[in-house]
Amino acid sequence: MDTAGKHWLIEYHGCDASTLNDEPHIRQSLCDAAVASGATIVTKVFHRFSPQGVTGVVVVEESHLSIHTWPESGYAAVDFFTCGDCLPERAHEVLRVALNSTHADVLQVDRGQGGPGQSVVVHEVRTETPAPMLRRTPTEHTSWNQATG
Amino acid sequence: MDTAGKHWLIEYHGCDASTLNDEPHIRQSLCDAAVASGATIVTKVFHRFSPQGVTGVVVVEESHLSIHTWPESGYAAVDFFTCGDCLPERAHEVLRVALNSTHADVLQVDRGQGGPGQSVVVHEVRTETPAPMLRRTPTEHTSWNQATG
Repeated sequence: MDTAGKHWLIEYHGCDASTLNDEPHIRQSLCDAAVASGATIVTKVFHRFSPQGVTGVVVVEESHLSIHTWPESGYAAVDFFTCGDCLPERAHEVLRVALNSTHADVLQVDRGQGGPGQSVVVHEVRTETPAPMLRRTPTEHTSWNQATG
Repeated sequence: MDTAGKHWLIEYHGCDASTLNDEPHIRQSLCDAAVASGATIVTKVFHRFSPQGVTGVVVVEESHLSIHTWPESGYAAVDFFTCGDCLPERAHEVLRVALNSTHADVLQVDRGQGGPGQSVVVHEVRTETPAPMLRRTPTEHTSWNQATG
């Protein structure tokens, strides 16, 4: 079986505190992101911390998606780790809109690529910034530009 | 609240197929790794795939630990993402012994370090190889050497 996977580590900044503390919204958004990427959901687990913050993991047949939010900092740390034909960029499109963040730092890593010494490869690091006038509510789509970080 | 986190992405190679397919062992080992790192377990979810392979996530107050195994390839993809004072190296010490792997590719990433454009930092990529004569059963400890990948 092919072990090759695509792992996107994303730092979403400038998000609304209330959005990052809304566990049902975070849960639905991460599930929507999983489906958008082409993954098949196996199970999921979410937890809301006191006084604030949400952690969630969606286990998919093709690995997992996870989120940890710090509402007080407008920040969320997200991972999309998918194997096979899944497209983590699709999950990213969904979640950046759902979180309505102003900036995202994206680290793309290739995993399971080969034998020891070559199986994990840093593919790209970049910062994405949406044009301010195009920033939308979570229900709308946003056109983003990419700037190399 | 401090958003800084340490994220270790580890590729374990040369593991026994039976070990990687043993869901109770994988579950216990990942929980042991979480505790060893100093993290506090919130909840966990594990799934055994047919015909083989195990996926598991341990959600901790300080983020999460995850594992995906490919027994037929002797390979496991593992993430230790911890914040605060947790030590992912301790989790790694536990899991490399539990999986009895011959090689590990380790990518260390710092997360939540600052504002947009600087929050995710690739800290180190390396390959670790244990001295063959020191390779042990999962119940014993192994002395490993590090080789820069």
